[in-house]
Formats: sequence, structure tokens, C-alpha cells
Amino acid sequence: MYFSKRDLQFNLYELLNVEQLTQYAYFQDHNRESFDMVLDAAEQIADKMLHPLLIEMDRKEPQLVEGKIRVHEGMKAIVKRFGEDGWINATFSYEEGGQQVPVTVHNAAAFIFQAANYSASVYPFLTTGAANLIRSFGSPELIETYTPLMYNGRWQGTMALTEPNAGSSLSDISTTAQPTNEEGVYKIQGQKIFISCGDHDACENVVHLLLAKIKGGPVGTKGISLFVVPQKRIKDNGLSENDVTTAGVYHKMGYKGAPIAHLMFGSNDDCKGYLVGEPHKGLSYMFQMMNEARVGVGTNAAAIGTAAYHASLAYAKERPQGRPIGAKDPTQPQTLIINHADVKRMLLFQKSVVEGSLSLLLQCGLWSDLAHVAEGETKERAELLLDLLTPIAKSYPSEMCCQTTSAAVQILGGAGYTTDFPMEQYYREARIHPIHEGTTGIHGLDLLGRKITLKGGKGVQFLMQEIQQTIGESKNSTLKNLGELLEKALGRVQKVTEHLLALASQNVEVFLADATLYLEFFGIVTIAWQWLKQAVQAQKALVQAVSESDRNFYQGKIATAHYFFEYELVKTISLSQRLTSSDRTTVEMQAEWF
Amino acid sequence: MYFSKRDLQFNLYELLNVEQLTQYAYFQDHNRESFDMVLDAAEQIADKMLHPLLIEMDRKEPQLVEGKIRVHEGMKAIVKRFGEDGWINATFSYEEGGQQVPVTVHNAAAFIFQAANYSASVYPFLTTGAANLIRSFGSPELIETYTPLMYNGRWQGTMALTEPNAGSSLSDISTTAQPTNEEGVYKIQGQKIFISCGDHDACENVVHLLLAKIKGGPVGTKGISLFVVPQKRIKDNGLSENDVTTAGVYHKMGYKGAPIAHLMFGSNDDCKGYLVGEPHKGLSYMFQMMNEARVGVGTNAAAIGTAAYHASLAYAKERPQGRPIGAKDPTQPQTLIINHADVKRMLLFQKSVVEGSLSLLLQCGLWSDLAHVAEGETKERAELLLDLLTPIAKSYPSEMCCQTTSAAVQILGGAGYTTDFPMEQYYREARIHPIHEGTTGIHGLDLLGRKITLKGGKGVQFLMQEIQQTIGESKNSTLKNLGELLEKALGRVQKVTEHLLALASQNVEVFLADATLYLEFFGIVTIAWQWLKQAVQAQKALVQAVSESDRNFYQGKIATAHYFFEYELVKTISLSQRLTSSDRTTVEMQAEWF
Repeated sequence: MYFSKRDLQFNLYELLNVEQLTQYAYFQDHNRESFDMVLDAAEQIADKMLHPLLIEMDRKEPQLVEGKIRVHEGMKAIVKRFGEDGWINATFSYEEGGQQVPVTVHNAAAFIFQAANYSASVYPFLTTGAANLIRSFGSPELIETYTPLMYNGRWQGTMALTEPNAGSSLSDISTTAQPTNEEGVYKIQGQKIFISCGDHDACENVVHLLLAKIKGGPVGTKGISLFVVPQKRIKDNGLSENDVTTAGVYHKMGYKGAPIAHLMFGSNDDCKGYLVGEPHKGLSYMFQMMNEARVGVGTNAAAIGTAAYHASLAYAKERPQGRPIGAKDPTQPQTLIINHADVKRMLLFQKSVVEGSLSLLLQCGLWSDLAHVAEGETKERAELLLDLLTPIAKSYPSEMCCQTTSAAVQILGGAGYTTDFPMEQYYREARIHPIHEGTTGIHGLDLLGRKITLKGGKGVQFLMQEIQQTIGESKNSTLKNLGELLEKALGRVQKVTEHLLALASQNVEVFLADATLYLEFFGIVTIAWQWLKQAVQAQKALVQAVSESDRNFYQGKIATAHYFFEYELVKTISLSQRLTSSDRTTVEMQAEWF
Repeated sequence: MYFSKRDLQFNLYELLNVEQLTQYAYFQDHNRESFDMVLDAAEQIADKMLHPLLIEMDRKEPQLVEGKIRVHEGMKAIVKRFGEDGWINATFSYEEGGQQVPVTVHNAAAFIFQAANYSASVYPFLTTGAANLIRSFGSPELIETYTPLMYNGRWQGTMALTEPNAGSSLSDISTTAQPTNEEGVYKIQGQKIFISCGDHDACENVVHLLLAKIKGGPVGTKGISLFVVPQKRIKDNGLSENDVTTAGVYHKMGYKGAPIAHLMFGSNDDCKGYLVGEPHKGLSYMFQMMNEARVGVGTNAAAIGTAAYHASLAYAKERPQGRPIGAKDPTQPQTLIINHADVKRMLLFQKSVVEGSLSLLLQCGLWSDLAHVAEGETKERAELLLDLLTPIAKSYPSEMCCQTTSAAVQILGGAGYTTDFPMEQYYREARIHPIHEGTTGIHGLDLLGRKITLKGGKGVQFLMQEIQQTIGESKNSTLKNLGELLEKALGRVQKVTEHLLALASQNVEVFLADATLYLEFFGIVTIAWQWLKQAVQAQKALVQAVSESDRNFYQGKIATAHYFFEYELVKTISLSQRLTSSDRTTVEMQAEWF
């Protein structure tokens, strides 16, 4: 298996008590049974349609044929199925044709798709994000025209931000929008690169949510507006070309099943774009989608890591090699490699990262739901915690699952390096995540430069309260020492943060120079908190557990929490040493010295 | 450029004073001029023949066609050239047709080949290792029959160890050797997997140095013997088949230009093998080759890391993106990304790992030369230091260059993930090194379980003396603080080592459970020593440096040493905390808890 349903259920029902959401009117028709049905339905599609194409979609990459990107032929049925079964707008309201499924549960289902076949899973996910932007900020006419066909999967949605000279630096986009005589209609000119699902033949049309600058508007990010730019526009109840040309499809290391396009807009001065919301507010609108997408990318990474973990675990349970240390008699049969401490270490490393990430990611889903339906302090708390931890939820799994998939390869040895096993594919696929939806460096700057001090640091205060509560719950148990270790780590967070914030007013470059390391540091502590939460719950449940499989499950949780604290949380000692050092090598280094 | 010749020269002439070797009779015909000629000749071949095929050999993988592996057609000329120009036996004696080149210099030249095109570089390297085994342990007849044709590149050499059920556990090989009427001639039966260059059409014959068990011999590693098993045997002044069948060629994540074969021996009971040396001593003979090969693998990894570093450096010096922190005016032109502290950090990380590794690897070369030509304590010291540090020289670059090539990808962002740049290929290629020639786990066991205590710990004593000497040289300079940091780290090494050795007698499984982490820990300290050595030399040379490029070079060395101590050596604090902890999670974890 490529994921653990037991672990998803542990998260939803034991850790997060997702059923609490049904007390809110928006979710009142739901209950555990309906949530389980969502997961079961996802598993069915993942098993029957997505996972069987995992390898094949990697080997048969999308190709540009006569100006059109051809994707794996199996994608047509998958995209259709996602639309027909209501996956694209499952979380939206009944009025919009949705099912009012909590984001938490929907993300758990999406995680199953992603673990089964990451490339295939991104098609509907992008459409959801794009449609969400239109419904949130677009005119009733735009909503009516575009969203129904996106919801049913016939039209693909994308986010079109990056340009050849504007990647991390979005303020430098040069795509222009020229007003026309029609209100809200603009002529678009420019090019966009790295557009996921930017063009393909498994849908009838592609709807780009595109950032451009209205001519004469303010410079920089303040002059960026958001447009709906369909590949084909509606004309006389049919579709006609909208002067969007596919200049190329990228060939890449992994994530090959999804087509990443280089697009030209308005080469013949006939590309129409429809303004979404007000002019010059595009970037703030887009951030709604980006924030969702960022948690989504973290989930993608954790899902790939999860699939690799389970595959390497299955191998370790079957592969005999060597003998126990201290019992080297060669006449005795070999032992299974799962019995070697070093192999267990590599498995625990994977388990601790992917399950620790998943619990944070589903926690983000719950905050997202509460931000939507709750009120007062519950809402504020959820919003701020989500905002604060989005860079961690995106970056921790993205960075760490490059390492966990590497551990999965290592467990198989030479076999792991061959294409006979999927490990090498997982390793290649995992590597995209520290790059897209904001590089890790960008998220470091976001966390340290903005999120920590947002609203006077209220988000951090809320987080510390949450963590202290978990520590409190660990106190009268065998997990006491973990609680103490986490408390010490919180002390380090405080010390480092104060040290850095003091630098902010003196020298902003020095302040932010190690923001990426601060992100890593903060991320480890956050995941340690998730592990303490899991261990506290597992400890409680273990006492009452009846079945052997349940007892094993909870024992595994407790052991993995210990692993995380001993092997991962301990890294924050060195990190805090570095982050409070006065050495400024990376700032002072000169280009010509390299 | 894919490597720095200036850095190679710094290592050979400033750090190691490789000219000291010319005082020994074996190297008396050499001087700096002849060493430079070796490097220049390597650069010529690398530039003109190897590097141009880097990408193409990745895209056109070897294929098994009618029982024969076809490699890239360019390999014929390359293999021929390596043979004709004497690269395969360059270090061997004049009597053997060699040039008595020091291993140190030869490895520096090999490093250039590897950085240019890793896959192409392994063909001659494997032949050298195999020929070296025959000349060291084989009968005069075997030497005469096989080595000349290996030296001139017409016959490929391999090491055939791994079997389906015997990878890390070599004692379990099941390939058998049955004595025949002819003395020294055996019938071989079995299969070998993952054999690099095990079959290909760029040579006339393949000579396998194969491990097998003579029937009736002792069980386990004590019953392993070494054989020459040619793919075609000599018959009537010609060649005839020797019942060696190629069952398959592996398709793999990277390192695609080199053919890795699955071979069957004696399927028709007609495979002859020729015993090398005495029966049952095969493993000890093979270790000679493996030890060379291990330092070689470390060099491969460092070379790939070096190529990726230089490619990402060139990109960072050309790519404008964003503006300096604190100067965000969007009307100003963008700055080059090399000016961002986070990009400099990623470049310094790469530079510190690859140049730190290279200096250790060339140091190993010098020890190897001294072990060969020197006498008395110099020889003993060289042998023991080489023996002690071989697991580090293999594993530190192998593990870390997976991370440095990842940093190279990251610097390019989305572009780094595409096949438009070689970064993704370097990332894929680097991943083989923690696996072959003994996994990292095996080297951890070797270091902690054997090497540390070898000869009563004399190797460690020698190493500590060397490091203390370097610290002494740093004392009256601006590098004093680095010396102090290294001294503290040595204290940690002592504390951790004593702690672990005390466990050895109590519980050998617990003693060795974190051997991989101990290897990492010891490796970081070793590379820190190399960086202090480099910084001391650079500091001295900087005072006298005349040219601006020299001053920049030395400044870069000093800054990178500071980077290594601040960002890498600091990790040993957390590692020592873990390594002295009494938590035994990885030992106590149960298979059913996963």
C-alpha cells in the first residue's frame, strides 16, 4: 500500500476530532460516516485509476505535437471522473453545486490521490484553486460563465504567474493588459513559463488565472491585476481561439505526467482577458490561491514521501540480508533487513517526517475550516495559526521528503537506484517541491520577515499556547521527558527569535540572511509538537486498545515520537547556535571570491 | 567550466607539496612540470571527448541487443584513447609499461575526467582496479596473459562481487568454483548482479575479477576465492566464448552512460575461471581493490558535486532576479542572484563540501603514495591514516554531494528541475554513491566497529596529532577562533568515542546502532580539519599574493573555511548529543510497530 488509512483516521478522528465541525451549520449534514465515505471513494479511484498509471505516466512524458500538448491517454478518463464525482468543488457550497465537505477531509482524500500518483493528482487540484479565485473575486457573469465547466472537469484551471524574468520576483512581471471598449475586457500580451497543466488534450479548454499589469498602472506589485484568460473564448455558444499559443512543454527530472507549459499570450494582438475584481489588486487575490496551494504542495510532498516510505517498508519486511550484529554465524539463515537497527533508523526517519508532516497539514485543514465557519476568537486563532504556519506546512515536508525518499532508495540499495522499483521515481518527483509555489528561501523570508511579527506577534503567541497545552498534557505520563525536551526547544525558539528581531532594526540583510535556517529550525519544533500530540493521544488510546493491530499502531506512534525527539529535534541545538552567532560569512562573501 | 584547475594546483603544490614525492626513487623522474603535463593532458581529453557527451550519454542509455550491451558509440574512441595514452596503468612501474605517476596526481587527473562525464570515466577506472589485482596477486602467467590487453584498453576489467542474495552480506555469495584437471583452472557457476561495465561493445573482451566459493571450502567469508573470469577465453591465439551470458542491463536513475550488467556464469557448464593467488583468500585480495575503489567513489561524488557547483555558480553570476533586501524599489534594475545572502549560502555550502572533500581525497592519494614508497614511521603513518579515513573519504562526499547537487538545482529554481540544464542530471548521478562500494551504513560499521580500534587505536592517535598540528599552525593568526572550534570538536569526538566504546562490551547492537551517525560526525570533523589546513595556507599565501585573481582565490578559501565551521562543524554539537544519549529507539523498535 502507498498510504496508511489507519493513520488518516487517527488524524481526523483521534487527533483533530474533525467531527466537531458538524456543529457548524455549513457542515451540519455531515458525520463520521460521510467523511469515511469520502475517503473510501478516494481510495477506490486512487487504486483503480491513478496508481496503475504511476510508472507509465513517468515513462511516457507529455509531448508538444502540432502546437498542442499531448498527455498520457489515461488522463482523459481520470479528469472526467474527478469532475463527474464532484471532487473539484467538493468543499464549495450546495448553491455552487458543491458538497460542503470540510477542507480537512477533502485534503485527506486528496492526499490519497497524491500518494497514488502525484502527477495525475495535480490536474483537478489546480482547477479547484483557479475556480476558487473566480468565485471569490469575480463578477457574477465570470462565475456563471467559467466555474460550472471547471467544476465538471471539462475545463482545466491554472495559475499563470511566472515569466522568464519574473520568478521569485513577481513585481517584475511584464505581461500587459490594455483596456478595450468593452468594460472589464482587456487585451493581454506577454509570456508565461512553468505553467502547470497550462495546455493539454485531456480537457476541452484551459482557463488561466493570469497576473498582468494594466498599462499606466503603478509600478511593482501594486500594479498587478488578475485576469481570466481562457485558451479558447466563448463565441456564439461555441469556442474560438483566444490567441494563446503553447511555445513549449518542459522536460523535467520527475513529475513527468503533468504537462508544464511555456505559453505566449497575444502574439497576434487578439488575446482577451477578463478582469477579476478590481484593478491592481491581483496579487492579494492570488495570494488566496497561493496560500491554499502552498499547503497543497506540502501535502504533495508528504504524500510522495509516504508512498516511498510504505514501499521501502514492504521491501525491508521481505528482504533477507546479513545477520544480527553479534551473531554472525554464516551457517545460520540471513535475517530480514528490517531487523537491522540502521534500517529501522531509516524507516523511523521516514515515518517521523511523513506522519509528522501529515498531522500538521491536516491541522492546517482544520484551521482553514474553522476560519471559514467559526467566529470570534476561534476564527481569529485559526486564521492566524494558519497564516503563521503556512510557510512551514509548505517547506518542511518539501525539504524533508527529498531526504526521506532518499532514505527509501537507500534501504533498497542498488535495487533502489534502478527503475525496477518506484523509489527512484519518488526521489525525482519529491525534488520539485522545494521549488514551486515559492522556493524554500522565499518561505524563510515570509516566516521571519513577515509572519513572526504579524499582528504584533499574536500568531506566535497562539502557537506557543497550543504547544504549552500539549506539553501540559504530557506531564503526568511516561512522555514527560519529551515534554521537557520540547519546552527546552521552545526556549531556544524564543532566544533565537529575540536575537534575530533585535538585528532587524540594525541591519536587515543580516537579520534575514539565515531565514532559510530559521525556517528549518522553526519547522522542526513545530513537527516535534505534532509528535508530542500524537504520542499523548496514542498513550491514552493504548491503554484501551483491544486489537493487536491497534496496540502495534499506538506503540509505533510512541516509538516514532521518541525517534523524532532524539534524532530530529536535537538538531535545533546546533541550529540555534548558528542562528545566534555573530559570524556573517554569507553576507560578507564577495561574488569574485567564489 | 566544470572544475577548478586552480584548486587542484592549490591542493597538489601548496597543501600537499606533492613534489616531495620526487625524492623517492620510484618518482625521481617526475617534477612539477611533468605533473602539470598530466593535468593538462587530462583536461584536453575531458574537454574534447568526455564533456561533449555528458548529456547525450544520459539520454541514450545502454541497451541489451541480442545478448550484447550496446553503449554510446562515442565510448569506443574514448576507451581507445584512455588505453593508448597510458591512463589505465599510468601509476604502474616502467617494467609494466606504466609511467610511475604518483597516485595523488593520477587521482587529480581522474577527477577532471569524472567532473567532465562521470559515466565515461568509470570504464578505465574499473580496468585499472582489476588489472591491479592481477598484478598484485596473480601468477606471472595470468599477469602476462591479461594485463597488457587491459592496459591498452582493448579489454575491460570489472569487479564481480554482488549476487541476488549477497549484496552487503558478501559472506553469502553462492557462485561456485569446481576444480578441474588443469591446475588453477576452475569451472564457475552462478550469477552476479550490478556489475559495472560487465558487458559492452566498446571493448573486445571483459575480464571479471570474480568472487566465488571453491566447493568444499570453509563457510562464510573465509571460503571466498578470487578468480579471473574472462567473457571470452583465449584459444589458439584467438578468442572463444567462455559461457558468460548477459542476462540483462539495468535501467537506472542516473549514471546511465555506464552499462550495469546482470551476468550468468556457466549456464552451459563451460565457464572457466583462473584462480588468483591462493584459495580462500579472495576477500582479502579484493579489499585492496575495494579500498582503492572506495576512495575512487568518494572522488566521483566530489567530482559530480564540483561540476554542479561550477554550473550553478555560473548561473548565479548571470541571472538577475529580485533586489537587495532593504532596497526594494521596483523601478531599479534587478540584481544578480549571487548577491543574495541565501544564494551565497547555497554556493558556499557546495564549495565547502566539494573542495573540502577534494582536499581529503587528494590527501588520501598522498598517503597511498607514501605507503608505497616510504619506509618506517612515514609508511606506517600513511597506511594507518589511509585505512582509518577510507570510510570517510568514501562516504562523506557520497552523502553530502547528494545535498550539494540539490543546492545546485535549487539555485536555478524551476529551470534547475528541467532537462534544459545539467543540474538535474548531476542530482540523479550523485545518488548512486552512497550505495555502491559499500553502503554508507556498511562504512559506518567499518569505521566504528573496526577502524577506530585497529592497532590499539593508533590510526586515531596519528589523526589527532595531524589535526593538533594544524590547530597549532592556526594559533597566531586571525584563524585562531577556527582552531579553537576545532579543538572543541575534537573534545566531542573523544567524549563520544569513549562513550560508544564503553558500550561495545555491554551490548554490541546498541554500540553500533548509530554507526552511520558516528560516521557523519567523524566526517564533519575531518573535513573541518581539511578546511583549517586550507585556510592556514591561504592566509599565508594571501600576504604574498600579487595578482587579483590569486587574492580572490585565497579570500574565497578563508571565507569558505569560516562557512564550514559556522554552518557544518556546528552540526557536531547535536550529533554528539544524540550519540551520547541513552535512548535506544532504533534498537527497541519492533517490525510490527511500523
